[in-house]
Amino acid sequence: MGSDEMLVAGTIATWKAMLSRADKLFTALDVAALEEQVAPGRNRLIYLWGHLSATHDRMIELLGVGERVHPEFDAIFLSAPDRSMGLPSIEVIRAWWAKVSTRLNDGITKFSVSDWLARHTAVSEEDFAKEPLRNRLSILLTRTNHLSYHIGQTSLARK
Amino acid sequence: MGSDEMLVAGTIATWKAMLSRADKLFTALDVAALEEQVAPGRNRLIYLWGHLSATHDRMIELLGVGERVHPEFDAIFLSAPDRSMGLPSIEVIRAWWAKVSTRLNDGITKFSVSDWLARHTAVSEEDFAKEPLRNRLSILLTRTNHLSYHIGQTSLARK
Repeated sequence: MGSDEMLVAGTIATWKAMLSRADKLFTALDVAALEEQVAPGRNRLIYLWGHLSATHDRMIELLGVGERVHPEFDAIFLSAPDRSMGLPSIEVIRAWWAKVSTRLNDGITKFSVSDWLARHTAVSEEDFAKEPLRNRLSILLTRTNHLSYHIGQTSLARK
Repeated sequence: MGSDEMLVAGTIATWKAMLSRADKLFTALDVAALEEQVAPGRNRLIYLWGHLSATHDRMIELLGVGERVHPEFDAIFLSAPDRSMGLPSIEVIRAWWAKVSTRLNDGITKFSVSDWLARHTAVSEEDFAKEPLRNRLSILLTRTNHLSYHIGQTSLARK
């Protein structure tokens, strides 16, 4: 493995570790537990699970690894706060989360180092020429941290 | 910049972005605000600030970039839960946090790609030969996510 491949492998390992932690945490919860809030008046766990699923569903497009699974749920989990709209059923969220995780991980496994350093789909060629760090790797890094941010909150309800 | 340097630059940029977010968040708080809890009965913000400072202080040693600033505070912020011991004053924590951040960032700026891929000081040469991903970069990646985890909690108190 070359040095650049080692660096990428470390970044992917951190992503997978956090994804696996979230997976164990959320898939173990029943309907009642998913209704709990991370703090009084704050997001319910079911909303956070959907929010993470929607964020990762968007990554499929940003990284260019396939078709999105439920782009229509962005309106519920990315544009609107919790308790403002009806949510999909837990079964639907569970299947969505699993499908998105698989599609993402299957896609990124095939990436070469130069794929990781290529621009993501939300930055123009012009902007990317000026800001070359807006590459696919930055999407993986920032979304891994976004996941950690919400796992930290979820742990307050489920410790 | 070579491809491996681009990968490292992205990882450092994510670390610095999260560190700066924590810095803005904690340094703006007064004594009363730092006494707030992230959720009822959970950690106070002052404890979390110390916990992050201690974690980063340990990174100085793990990455081999200098001498630790306050190793004696590990007992308060890493080994013991909040409210079990007296805490240092806010002025001491503030100065500690700043000094640790500077020492770390000055140190990692000088790292070459091969420095990042070298083992950290808590893994033996023997274990590192079997698990080459236990390198300095993995310390930076996991501690960046640890920081995000607690920023997510802190945001519940200070939104």
